[in-house]
Amino acid sequence: MIRINANYRKLASSYLFVEVARRVAEYTKEHPHTDIIKLGIGDVTEPLPPACIAAFRAGVEELADRSSFKGYGPEQGYEFLRNAIAENDFKKRGAEISADEIFVSDGAKCDTGNIQELFATDISIAIPDPVYTVYVDTNVMAGRTGEFSEGRYEGLVYLDATAENSFVPSPPPFPVDLIYLCFPNNPTGATATKTQLESWVTYARRHKALILFDAAYEEFIREPSLPHSIFEIEGARDVAIEFRSFSKTAGFTGVRCAYTVIPKSCMGYDASGRPFSLHDMWDRRQSTKFNGVSYPVQRAAHAVYSEEGKKQIRGLSNFYLENAAIIRTSLSRLGFSVSGGENSPYLWVNIGMDSWDFFDRLLTDANVVCTPGSGFGRCGNGYVRISAFNSRENVEKALLRIERAFN
Amino acid sequence: MIRINANYRKLASSYLFVEVARRVAEYTKEHPHTDIIKLGIGDVTEPLPPACIAAFRAGVEELADRSSFKGYGPEQGYEFLRNAIAENDFKKRGAEISADEIFVSDGAKCDTGNIQELFATDISIAIPDPVYTVYVDTNVMAGRTGEFSEGRYEGLVYLDATAENSFVPSPPPFPVDLIYLCFPNNPTGATATKTQLESWVTYARRHKALILFDAAYEEFIREPSLPHSIFEIEGARDVAIEFRSFSKTAGFTGVRCAYTVIPKSCMGYDASGRPFSLHDMWDRRQSTKFNGVSYPVQRAAHAVYSEEGKKQIRGLSNFYLENAAIIRTSLSRLGFSVSGGENSPYLWVNIGMDSWDFFDRLLTDANVVCTPGSGFGRCGNGYVRISAFNSRENVEKALLRIERAFN
Repeated sequence: MIRINANYRKLASSYLFVEVARRVAEYTKEHPHTDIIKLGIGDVTEPLPPACIAAFRAGVEELADRSSFKGYGPEQGYEFLRNAIAENDFKKRGAEISADEIFVSDGAKCDTGNIQELFATDISIAIPDPVYTVYVDTNVMAGRTGEFSEGRYEGLVYLDATAENSFVPSPPPFPVDLIYLCFPNNPTGATATKTQLESWVTYARRHKALILFDAAYEEFIREPSLPHSIFEIEGARDVAIEFRSFSKTAGFTGVRCAYTVIPKSCMGYDASGRPFSLHDMWDRRQSTKFNGVSYPVQRAAHAVYSEEGKKQIRGLSNFYLENAAIIRTSLSRLGFSVSGGENSPYLWVNIGMDSWDFFDRLLTDANVVCTPGSGFGRCGNGYVRISAFNSRENVEKALLRIERAFN
Repeated sequence: MIRINANYRKLASSYLFVEVARRVAEYTKEHPHTDIIKLGIGDVTEPLPPACIAAFRAGVEELADRSSFKGYGPEQGYEFLRNAIAENDFKKRGAEISADEIFVSDGAKCDTGNIQELFATDISIAIPDPVYTVYVDTNVMAGRTGEFSEGRYEGLVYLDATAENSFVPSPPPFPVDLIYLCFPNNPTGATATKTQLESWVTYARRHKALILFDAAYEEFIREPSLPHSIFEIEGARDVAIEFRSFSKTAGFTGVRCAYTVIPKSCMGYDASGRPFSLHDMWDRRQSTKFNGVSYPVQRAAHAVYSEEGKKQIRGLSNFYLENAAIIRTSLSRLGFSVSGGENSPYLWVNIGMDSWDFFDRLLTDANVVCTPGSGFGRCGNGYVRISAFNSRENVEKALLRIERAFN
């Protein structure tokens, strides 16, 4: 008899965005002619930068001719892309990362979800609350938690991110083995200073812990003193893995390209304390379970690093940051306490009531979709996440409706 | 201390194709001006069909404009593609599969590697020998085997595929929980008749076992009586999952698109025998760890089902099958016993010596790369796999060299 992975039964409820989609679909069915504006899921709305389109197109054309045709590419990504990433995203910022420490993939969601396969099932894990749910759910599926009870999984160490610590948790006063961090943060929009990241690297080095650093939103950082990469912190090369994505940077949510950085000096250990290269383990994992990213997509991603590409993606992130500023001003005027939205495309709004109740009210009274903060963890209750990814027209229309509904 | 998944240490050796690439690179380094012809890895060489190029291009153009821009797509794939698959690949062959039972992905390697996550770690697994190594390695990584010893992993049930059973193993005389089957087979090129598949479905129904059916090479079937899908067998909907790919069908190895079929009636069970929908579990898995396939890639895959697309991919598979026939004739003339290469792009050649010795000899004496049969399992020793995926020119040149070296 084929028995299932019983850990799936522990999964608390539908994946957050699936539940959001369900409620929106239900409302739309009852009110078929309503124009709903989605400020919920962090999906981009602006077209792909022209430099990426041109390179994408050229990549497709190469496949039309036998002499330039490309079959299987390297599982780790093409060198042209890995070189450009190492040079532009790391070396130029003083972070010593080489091209062969970069693994190109089809999404940071996949990578942050798959990376836990490299670790023992009985490690201790620290996860911020609120958090991008993928970190938690993939560990639940792998059996690293107990049951779900009162909004949390047994067996996980939760790092409360609250207004009191400006949504940047400090290392706990006891050792854990694996730590998920995300800055600029999804969902709170909080950023971490160099000093704050240094305290985490020091902690990880002391306890031979590993930091999984999700930097999918680093393109939105404008404040010069803020680090873009964990590898700007001394000593991080031995204790950290970083995840990046072209999704929010260059509008690749439907195109699919991302990458993961695992320095060669980054180690895991067997029960007797013998070190093993996590770089080599991930290389084996990817070679066995993955076949690389679509060739024309890698060409399109490569164009992000051209001179025009850099200007165009800066233009994109400026545009979304202007949206964020407009939303911030408007919601603050309505009396909401708003954080995030500076150096980040996400705004974290204290709405002073249950998150799903506010979600339903916003949907019904303003026909605007937000993401309930409680879907990201217990500390998220009383908050909603508003995303700045939208057209200017929709942002302004949504804010007018919200002002009408809440004034 | 971050402890590793110790199961990775059981992995016998480098992934087969990595080892092949290593030996070729070493030889090339020593003989830099040698023209090496690769008849090893099953990678296509002919350009993408014009219908796919046109649709791919149009998909890219849609991303250039805000009004037609696509962000995140459905994790399960776009409806336009799922509908075309259900209609053409299943309903037209009398297999009752609906569009929402199809999950579009970026590769059958990913899907056949990831599907084991849905099952308990202590199930019994039957795996053919020789076999596509991904089935085995992903189960080793997940801890479903013991150590590697004398060419096999402890704890797996191996189904010997030998000349005696024409490389089509029968169900074992005892129950197992999970069975991997692949027809037309990689690496042997063997095909299974309807009666043979019926015996597996009967076995699976009797024991509540699950069949994982890899049909990545079904496009190469020419014999009308041979089933293309396990779902052409009555009762298979309750006990089978099928994997398909556009890689070999339409030349998508560098483009990345595939799909997995999980009927809604296909069940797994908890320890007490309560049934759970594997369709729903995979849906949850994919929603949590995957973000869908690149939009323009799905457009390109969809074009496979247009009238021109169908003609063009038939032209492609005819071309590779002609290669296979040429190779078969030539190697048979040299006295090798050859199977496969009919209804399949792979030839399985009995070379009467150790597989890696023959690999090295072929590389050195003919500058031709094949895939050592022993890399696919113990029963593969004494064989090599020759792939028909190549230009006609290369195939003819390689055969001339082989004839010179072995005559």
